[in-house]
Amino acid sequence: MDRGLMNTMLASYGAETLRGIKQFIPDKEPRAYLYNLVAEYPNRGGKGFRPGLCIATCKAFGGKLEGAANSAICLELLHNAFLIHDDVEDESFFRRNKPTLHQSTNNAIAVNVGDAMQVLGLYPLFSNRKTLGDKLAMQIFLEVQHMVTESVEGQAMELGWRKNNTSNLKEADYLRMILKKTCWYTCMHPIRIGAIIGTKGRINPDKFDRLGYFMGTSFQIQDDVLNLIAEEEKYGKEIGGDILEGKRTLMLIHLMENCNKKELGKISKFLSVSIRERTQTEAMEILQLMHKYESIGYAKHTAQYLAGAALKEFYTLFSHLPDSEDKTLIESIILYMINREY
Amino acid sequence: MDRGLMNTMLASYGAETLRGIKQFIPDKEPRAYLYNLVAEYPNRGGKGFRPGLCIATCKAFGGKLEGAANSAICLELLHNAFLIHDDVEDESFFRRNKPTLHQSTNNAIAVNVGDAMQVLGLYPLFSNRKTLGDKLAMQIFLEVQHMVTESVEGQAMELGWRKNNTSNLKEADYLRMILKKTCWYTCMHPIRIGAIIGTKGRINPDKFDRLGYFMGTSFQIQDDVLNLIAEEEKYGKEIGGDILEGKRTLMLIHLMENCNKKELGKISKFLSVSIRERTQTEAMEILQLMHKYESIGYAKHTAQYLAGAALKEFYTLFSHLPDSEDKTLIESIILYMINREY
Repeated sequence: MDRGLMNTMLASYGAETLRGIKQFIPDKEPRAYLYNLVAEYPNRGGKGFRPGLCIATCKAFGGKLEGAANSAICLELLHNAFLIHDDVEDESFFRRNKPTLHQSTNNAIAVNVGDAMQVLGLYPLFSNRKTLGDKLAMQIFLEVQHMVTESVEGQAMELGWRKNNTSNLKEADYLRMILKKTCWYTCMHPIRIGAIIGTKGRINPDKFDRLGYFMGTSFQIQDDVLNLIAEEEKYGKEIGGDILEGKRTLMLIHLMENCNKKELGKISKFLSVSIRERTQTEAMEILQLMHKYESIGYAKHTAQYLAGAALKEFYTLFSHLPDSEDKTLIESIILYMINREY
Repeated sequence: MDRGLMNTMLASYGAETLRGIKQFIPDKEPRAYLYNLVAEYPNRGGKGFRPGLCIATCKAFGGKLEGAANSAICLELLHNAFLIHDDVEDESFFRRNKPTLHQSTNNAIAVNVGDAMQVLGLYPLFSNRKTLGDKLAMQIFLEVQHMVTESVEGQAMELGWRKNNTSNLKEADYLRMILKKTCWYTCMHPIRIGAIIGTKGRINPDKFDRLGYFMGTSFQIQDDVLNLIAEEEKYGKEIGGDILEGKRTLMLIHLMENCNKKELGKISKFLSVSIRERTQTEAMEILQLMHKYESIGYAKHTAQYLAGAALKEFYTLFSHLPDSEDKTLIESIILYMINREY
């Protein structure tokens, strides 16, 4: 499958999910500072990664798009709820080429819109009772509960590192954090839920966890690399924004493990002050150090290695299934992560 | 029932609920910036109003404490989640005599802890399946969904008023806002859920909505009055904090409807700037105007009137039930609201 077709399929499942989201947004007041803002992030268009993985896995295992639709809507609503709060917590300025929600409204309204999306995101799970029956609906509900729990735990780890200005992190700490913060809700649970629906509950979803973990870590590391090196407009965030935010990326951890003492002191000092006291110049110096110590190359290599491990898992788990566009779509996403140009 | 016994019963149901909350907090990392903070607000001790109403209603209708325990835990966890986000949104300094959570940690951590409590709060509803059966458990889940939805809608109304510096509000707008923001989750749903459990689902919970609305509005107005006039230590919030926050209370709305043009201009100007630009002196001037125009007396009178209406509803709904300590407890809460000293 070429990249064009992969993007077309992801866009199609994403569009289907967006239509569904809009049906779950109440058509009533309060509009201006609540319901009109719920569709704001979803409308900006994302990769459609989560609903795509969920729907494709469901179909690859013999299910129908309709069976996975409510769950995909839930995943996307909760994902966007999480982004809104994440942006508030990180004091980010841009999201998908536009000002973040708290920048275009204020912190209070953004926190509340995120809360609203968290509760709205659960309604499709109640609709699952009609389409999938009580038992499967309940199983998926517990999947989502676990997903959100892991995400807030991962977020707490990351926020704790920033608060304490932790500077002795190892790669294993980082991987554990993104397992919790990213992998469960970006890959593991979308795939698990898709497989549960596709097999009508006749599969142990735990067997997909390694695949989801390898995909999720690869995805997150690549996302962080892009944030550092891509052109601003192309990527939709400010360049070096992660450095300014003090985000503990694999590149930063690699750099702090490899730079000299004087450089480490400089980086630690930069991290110890508030975001408002950090300068773009300092962030650019850290970026240069990342180039100097090949931290970015190391991260790219790690991401490709993890994507390779994901591919092996994919073949183990999906080879016995009949060929289908959806099976190929999942393979293409992984291949794309291996061959991705930066 | 004298006030001492009422407080003892509320404290007892509150303590039972707090024990339950602690059983639902995972005993694992991340502790420092997540799970240790989840019990922070509940540990400070509140009125225990919500679990008390839920448990007492359940028992008054023939149910047992154990039947309502999970739901009371859920209500209290979601209530405290809501308080954490509310404090962030309002930029409040104190909660129950101590610094608010975002003041003692930071905004990011507080938002995330609130998110964690929202998801933790749902786990007891899954436990309801064992104690109450699938059907009642599902009914209560939908009650909670509605409760949270109404709360975020009410919050959006209030935040919108602040954002737009709305200065032409009427009493009806205020009552509609606190119906949504306060009444559903403080009174209406706790009573509804208690009655559903106590009658094993054999009652239409809608019949309690008027009671819950009258109690909730009375409670909120009295709470706002106390914020203005009580001694700081006694009440646990900063005096005049609501005025500084620009909170649209019944007193403020009454004042703006009754003061002269020059005074209205001054108040509007005060409300139009950010909280950091407002001074304590200006807030005290507005407090004096509230005394001058008897806005506080008006609010007290309205709260008592609403509590009287609640009492009438209570007798209609509870008179046929056998006498019990729990039935008397609910009556006592309402009588207390009528006779409350300021």
